[in-house]
Amino acid sequence: MQKDETVENSSVLRPRFDASGLIPVITQHHATGEVLMLAYMNEEALKLTLATRRAHYWSRSRQALWRKGDTSGEAQRVVEVRIDCDQDAILMKVEPLGKGAACHTGRRSCFYRAIDQDRLRTLPD
Amino acid sequence: MQKDETVENSSVLRPRFDASGLIPVITQHHATGEVLMLAYMNEEALKLTLATRRAHYWSRSRQALWRKGDTSGEAQRVVEVRIDCDQDAILMKVEPLGKGAACHTGRRSCFYRAIDQDRLRTLPD
Repeated sequence: MQKDETVENSSVLRPRFDASGLIPVITQHHATGEVLMLAYMNEEALKLTLATRRAHYWSRSRQALWRKGDTSGEAQRVVEVRIDCDQDAILMKVEPLGKGAACHTGRRSCFYRAIDQDRLRTLPD
Repeated sequence: MQKDETVENSSVLRPRFDASGLIPVITQHHATGEVLMLAYMNEEALKLTLATRRAHYWSRSRQALWRKGDTSGEAQRVVEVRIDCDQDAILMKVEPLGKGAACHTGRRSCFYRAIDQDRLRTLPD
């Protein structure tokens, strides 16, 4: 196990994938700052994302590589990819290329409900 | 297993904690929209966060409940808590109460490095 300081200050990309080989990815609209979704990448998805500048994820439900937009039309152009201090989370700034519905429910963002104690309130779009 | 549609449209909070009893939390500055950190909550941390409006997390490294700011001074007042379509991720909008260094490295955000292919580039603060 390398020292934390090395990971924090390093200029070497060494993502810490979890036991399932995945790393969580926060997808944020590059211009508005809106958080659109939280998804996961495996090593292949990350490599393809960086190489093609098109968002690729790993679908945990389908257990398959998922190039965002291939079925939904809601592709994402990658503007910037960041990694956090301990290299176990990614922040990706994207430009949505479809109708701007990152969520499979057709909404702009997956985070369309606020928690009021134990109840959920749907937010205006 | 309930149908996805129920989870997506429900007004009932039913967070899907993972096998370790955790749910990922994206912490975002309520005013600037900057993504500050990705952390995790267990059920207790979520309840305490909602009840006190102060950010509580579960520290995976220390395996302990973690009230943000107790040691660092960098507490977070909770402005809004959202949950995503399938209720397995949380987005929390906060007002930082300390010096505004959410990251343990002293930086405003944990996401201070951009990935340029296999190299990391530290971004201007």
